[in-house]
Amino acid sequence: MELVTQALAANRYALARLISLVEDDGTQARAALAALYPHTGQAHVVGVTGAPGTGKSTLVNELAKSLRARGTTVGVVAVDPSSPFTGGALLGDRLRMRDLAGDPGVFIRSMASRGSLGGLARTTNDVVKVLDAAGFAVVLVETIGAGQAEVDIARTAHTTIVVEAPGLGDEVQALKAGLMEIADVLVVNKADRPGAAQTARALEMVMGRNAPAGEAGEPAWRPPILQTVALDGTGVAEVLQAVGAHREHLRASGLWARREQARVETELLNVLREELLGRLLARVDREQIQGWVERIAAREVDAYTAVRSIFLDADERG
Amino acid sequence: MELVTQALAANRYALARLISLVEDDGTQARAALAALYPHTGQAHVVGVTGAPGTGKSTLVNELAKSLRARGTTVGVVAVDPSSPFTGGALLGDRLRMRDLAGDPGVFIRSMASRGSLGGLARTTNDVVKVLDAAGFAVVLVETIGAGQAEVDIARTAHTTIVVEAPGLGDEVQALKAGLMEIADVLVVNKADRPGAAQTARALEMVMGRNAPAGEAGEPAWRPPILQTVALDGTGVAEVLQAVGAHREHLRASGLWARREQARVETELLNVLREELLGRLLARVDREQIQGWVERIAAREVDAYTAVRSIFLDADERG
Repeated sequence: MELVTQALAANRYALARLISLVEDDGTQARAALAALYPHTGQAHVVGVTGAPGTGKSTLVNELAKSLRARGTTVGVVAVDPSSPFTGGALLGDRLRMRDLAGDPGVFIRSMASRGSLGGLARTTNDVVKVLDAAGFAVVLVETIGAGQAEVDIARTAHTTIVVEAPGLGDEVQALKAGLMEIADVLVVNKADRPGAAQTARALEMVMGRNAPAGEAGEPAWRPPILQTVALDGTGVAEVLQAVGAHREHLRASGLWARREQARVETELLNVLREELLGRLLARVDREQIQGWVERIAAREVDAYTAVRSIFLDADERG
Repeated sequence: MELVTQALAANRYALARLISLVEDDGTQARAALAALYPHTGQAHVVGVTGAPGTGKSTLVNELAKSLRARGTTVGVVAVDPSSPFTGGALLGDRLRMRDLAGDPGVFIRSMASRGSLGGLARTTNDVVKVLDAAGFAVVLVETIGAGQAEVDIARTAHTTIVVEAPGLGDEVQALKAGLMEIADVLVVNKADRPGAAQTARALEMVMGRNAPAGEAGEPAWRPPILQTVALDGTGVAEVLQAVGAHREHLRASGLWARREQARVETELLNVLREELLGRLLARVDREQIQGWVERIAAREVDAYTAVRSIFLDADERG
């Protein structure tokens, strides 16, 4: 496919078109993804997640700039609907983003639309694959850090940065949102504000209490707790250093391969699920489904019993 | 089933056990849900959603208290991991919740655990059914209002309250999180804080611009914008009044039945998807799946192609 060849060469127009194709998820998209797939597996996928108001979009922007300054190519996938990358931004944010505009070593894609349940994770996963195959060395995936689908997306990254900020009301937001367990690097952003040191101490206490045991013979990774002021770039170099160190840890410990396998297994089961539904719906007629919907809505039968009946019918028809 | 009979009589111990059963999702749970199902469809399911820091948990608490004062029975399902109902609370929140403890007309259940993608929506839906069948007249479902699964849950409620608060940083959070389109009632909580009037005006402007057209011959519902101070109960009665008015609107316009059908259709497709995957996994052996995972991780094949091969194998075996 011409489009795939061009996307593999990181042609921006081809990339944009291919990603739109992947988002629409047709037969063409699947063929393209199959062709791209052998070229994937090189990028370091870094999730950046945190509550609204932590300034994680600004941090993502600074991380991208810093990586570019070192000559590293960067893809950005913004899943957070409040991110400036997805259009929910104030004017100031948009102006900051201009730093990255026009640089061929950066590609930014927003995933603003809400599809069906579970669709967001699949699409994000596929868009990351496109950028990976196109040769972007680091792919930053920004998620809102609240919400099951979003946390599941962060979980599939090689390295997950959880962003916190002082003064967001109730203590440590990441703790409350259940993000601590997926954090590989913890960042207290807006560290020039009052309360930053306390927020960092609160994180240390929590992490200290839950110190990882380290699996048989492996050195355990202790998530570092770093402070940044993303607005002026303070501390961003240290975050990148920690991200690099985590990558080395993953490689040396064999965790990289294990995380990859876990991600692949989840993806395989999701594709199986969607494919099965598609195949069944192709065999069962739409009116029959509508008939079941009406009977369930009327409380004549429940959904589980209806599904058993639909299977019996479909099995009989072969 | 004895447990179902007792749960239908709103026996608290039976309800708690049945809900745990439903969360584990075994054969017994499905049988129980099938037995309960004819008794559902009576409760008014009210979603309460909003960004962290809006005080929606306190509002849920006050709504429950107010409903109880009128003799209405209330179930509460808290999906927000930062909710005091799910254990993420500060001491003050827990003390407030005591107001509801020991009242047999209230049943509170938290859904703190994160399951697989999509699992949260299914389980929440089933827990709501249990409370509906047990005769709770109103079921309040509290979600964090960020995140795809959580917004999808809110969308399945009959009436959705979107909670906003002044001073959360960037303007109207609900707008950024894409919640405005699902709001039936808008609440500016913490209305005693500076900026409450501006937040309300910002919401009016947005809603005014997007005034619903009203489907053929139907009076359109214009989401009211109300102000509350949930901490001392100010404005809570007005919110309940709006919720009641919305229920009447749904009934009179036929929207109640249409929302019910949409919810049922989503549920039916979700159950089909899970059932299909279960049936296929029962036929395909685990080692074969593991073999595919390894080949996909090694980039020898992509997940979509693997799924097609798995189907061919399964079809041959019958």
